Amino acid sequence: MHDGFAATPQPPYFAVIFTSLRSAGDAGYGATADRMMTLAAQQPGYLGVESVRGEDGLGITVSYWEDEAAIARWRKDAEHTLARERGRSAWYEHFELRVARVERAYGGGRTR
Amino acid sequence: MHDGFAATPQPPYFAVIFTSLRSAGDAGYGATADRMMTLAAQQPGYLGVESVRGEDGLGITVSYWEDEAAIARWRKDAEHTLARERGRSAWYEHFELRVARVERAYGGGRTR
Repeated sequence: MHDGFAATPQPPYFAVIFTSLRSAGDAGYGATADRMMTLAAQQPGYLGVESVRGEDGLGITVSYWEDEAAIARWRKDAEHTLARERGRSAWYEHFELRVARVERAYGGGRTR
Repeated sequence: MHDGFAATPQPPYFAVIFTSLRSAGDAGYGATADRMMTLAAQQPGYLGVESVRGEDGLGITVSYWEDEAAIARWRKDAEHTLARERGRSAWYEHFELRVARVERAYGGGRTR
């Protein structure tokens, strides 16, 4: 698999689509974001993540999960809960979070 | 709604998550990408789009649709079909496309 792509299994599985606009300044964001990526990857039912942030501060992170139960467990993680609070109050001007059930999927391109 | 976010309705609706790695050079990509954004927005059942590309060439575009029928119609559009062919053969080193049903959603942040 190419770098940056999640090696997800055959559907169905779940996607959490997190679109966010960062506020100015770091305020601890970078270190916590890295820590959350590491911690999420250790959760049962985690399948992978794809994440991009543009120069204008808009970012999309899609994490993939086996089922809704895995998403609910990760949501209850204490460190993650604290990080979300900081996100709401400091790091994000705005965010939208959507939980979706992936029904079908395929890949392609020059190098397939 | 903040710039860059799609003003989607209450779920359920559908998301097409398109993660891609651009190949080097433009080769007509920019103009076609702009045209496809304009054309998609004119389709019946289109709800919005969120799109980010990072400096490393990895991008995530999520388009939102009322139902699967709207996605299928857009897929059959002749100009879009030609553009997809160019994408496969020239513009993308690799891509992954996932069609998902959005089950729930919420927003937040400093400016809500």
